[in-house]
Order: sequence, then C-alpha cells, then structure tokens
Amino acid sequence: MARQGPAAGSESPRSPSRRAGRPAGATPDLRERLLDAAIACYVRQGIAATPLRAIAAEASVTPAMLHYYFGDKAQLQQAVVEERLMPAFAGLREPLLRAGDDVAALVAAFVRGMGELVARHPWLPALWVREVLCEGGALRELLLARVAPQLPRMLAERFAQAQQRGELDPGLDPRLLVVSLGGLTLFPAAGAPRWRPFFATDDLDADVLRDHTIALLDRGIGAG
Amino acid sequence: MARQGPAAGSESPRSPSRRAGRPAGATPDLRERLLDAAIACYVRQGIAATPLRAIAAEASVTPAMLHYYFGDKAQLQQAVVEERLMPAFAGLREPLLRAGDDVAALVAAFVRGMGELVARHPWLPALWVREVLCEGGALRELLLARVAPQLPRMLAERFAQAQQRGELDPGLDPRLLVVSLGGLTLFPAAGAPRWRPFFATDDLDADVLRDHTIALLDRGIGAG
Repeated sequence: MARQGPAAGSESPRSPSRRAGRPAGATPDLRERLLDAAIACYVRQGIAATPLRAIAAEASVTPAMLHYYFGDKAQLQQAVVEERLMPAFAGLREPLLRAGDDVAALVAAFVRGMGELVARHPWLPALWVREVLCEGGALRELLLARVAPQLPRMLAERFAQAQQRGELDPGLDPRLLVVSLGGLTLFPAAGAPRWRPFFATDDLDADVLRDHTIALLDRGIGAG
Repeated sequence: MARQGPAAGSESPRSPSRRAGRPAGATPDLRERLLDAAIACYVRQGIAATPLRAIAAEASVTPAMLHYYFGDKAQLQQAVVEERLMPAFAGLREPLLRAGDDVAALVAAFVRGMGELVARHPWLPALWVREVLCEGGALRELLLARVAPQLPRMLAERFAQAQQRGELDPGLDPRLLVVSLGGLTLFPAAGAPRWRPFFATDDLDADVLRDHTIALLDRGIGAG
C-alpha cells in the first residue's frame, strides 16, 4: 500500500476490506486536501451541521473517497483534531518555554506566537470561536481536556510566580491574564472579517496588530 | 385590543385577520417570555438552526401563539433585535458620553459598562459570538449597519484625538484599541463557561474581572 493511503501517518487504521479497495483518484496530497475541505466546511457552517457529503462536495470527490480515507464523520473530526489542531497549538509551546521567567518576554512571545499561528492556520480562530467558545461547540470537551491543561495553566502559574516576585502588577489576576491574552489575540483574529471593512482601512495588517497588542500589554493605554 | 397583543410596542403590525384571532393564553408578559425563549434557543443552537417550533417548545406554547405575536421567523428575529439587542447596546452609550475627554475614564467606563451590560443581559456575549463573530452569523450585516457605525467609531475617534494630544501611548492604534476593548470584555464574558471550570475557582466573579481588566488597560502588565 502506498503511503498516500490510510496506512500513512497517525490516522485510525481502516478495516482491511476497505484498505483493499483504494478508489481511483487517491493521490499523495488528497488526504491533506480533504482535511482542508473539512476545515473549510467546519468554519463556514459548524461541525455539527456539516455532513460528510458537504465536505466531499467541497473537495470535489465522492463521499466514498472520504470514507476510504477517514471512515465516518466522527473519525474525520478526530483526524482534523489530531493532524491539524493539536500540531498547530503544539507550535505555540516552544517559544513560550524559551521566554523564561521574564513576564514581558513571555507575554510578547505569546502574542507573537499567536500571530504566527494565525498566519499559518488562518482557519484556527474561527474554528475556535465556533467550536470551543460557542455553546454546544463540538471541540469543547476535547480541547478543555487536551489543550487547556497545558498551556493556559503553565502561563497562569508563571504569571502568579512573577506577581509574587513583584514583577507583575498587583492589580492583575494571573489566571484572568491568560483569559485577557486569549481575548487580545483570538478575538481580533476571529473578528478581522468584521472589523476590517468597518474601519475601512487596509493599513491594519498582522504586524500592526501584533505591535499594538504588545504595547497595550506592556504599558497599558499610557494615559497616567 | 389589549396592550399585550401585537398592537403594543414597536413590533411589525400583524394582519387584521391575525389580530382578530388572539389565542387563548395570551397574557401581558407572554410576549416578553417568548422573546426570552427565542434568545435561549438562538444562543444554544444558532438563529439559522432554530425553527419557530423549537422556540414554541422552549416557551411551552403552540407555534400558533408565536405566529400571533411575531409572524414568521424573520419577524421574530427582527423583534429580538429591536426590543432586546438594540436597547441593550443603547445603555452603553450614555456612560461613555459622560466620560468626556479623559482616556482612562473612557476606557474604564467602557469596561464597567460592558460588565453591567453582561450582568443585565447574560445572553448577549454568546449571541454576539455566534451571530456576529462566526462566519454566516445571522446578525452580522444588521449589527455592522446599525450598532457599529456609532459606538466603535466614536471611541476610535476619541482615542485618536487623545493620541494627538499625547494622552494615549503612541505605540497603540486608536482603531485597534476598540478591537482590544471588545476582546477584553466580550471574549471573557462569552468564554466564561469554558474558563471558569478550567481554572477550578469560584473567586473570579464579575467584579474581579472588571478590576483586572481596568488595571491591565491602565498600566499593562507592569513588568517594566
């Protein structure tokens, strides 16, 4: 079996009978293209409201091809999580660990890291908002169980330690600072299609947003 | 016709034949209760995915009762907008106008105002996230056309003027500061059901969140 089939990567193994029946048109990059199509549909109409046939139509393949690569709807969703979402967030950990104890460096690393994450995976904020933030979101339990225990808790602990050393404003709550960081990065990224046309400007690119956000976190509004 | 019927308030007038047929069970507060039920369904499953019969079931009335008060699905949505959403946001304008030119006072008034808004209308952040922030949201065009031109643009202009007077950190973008304010208030409010259990704490109430957010905006993380 060639590596483009279900034998490649970390996906759930398909049944041998299915493996034997590789459909015509299966190509090395088709699996990735199907994951792209799934994400596009998830973002547009939500995971719960996306039938496999909509994803097949998005990718211009037959539903049988989707079944061949991923099995059923739940298994496809699992593949998106394992092969797209989790690796995306994993890339955020490294620069945060490198930032060490310096709070300003840690906060800046988070903002920069989220900016790069969003640039590489533009679908991520919209998917997060729809499937984690919204009531009934399909990825809520999973991300709370797998993403949440690591990154946010690590950040909150390091903020709390910095505050004990007198290196974080005593008026802040270390846990809520993690929530604020999410609000200052995921919310503007997910909302960009809304606020960009509204402010009728093209000069507000990702770099301006990053520098603005770091300045705000560093010094506040500077009105004092 | 008694004022509990369609003749009351600002809703679209129903046809005379419908007016004549007031169903048994129509009471003065039923109309408000039906709006509550509509919002509960909208937040839970989204406006597009909410049929009138689901709202009728939520309110334990017949679909005929909903038709009597509001007409069709689009007219009910319009009533939620006119009688719930718009008045909610209108309450935010007053304290902002009172804050005058002082940027710190203006920013604090926004954070306080949003906190009070969310306390009075706990459904608002979730509805905003689902129907404005999410792609395909049903309230996007409408809110961009009716809410957006006023409040955010007024704030952005006042921030820009303050920056020209040297009263706002030059590293900030006055328009993005409006986006940041949304991210620091709507995102934590909408996400509270997610992050509260995660941080496993009950001490982070609305007042703590408000004071934390104002401190962050005032002074930043204070690591400098």
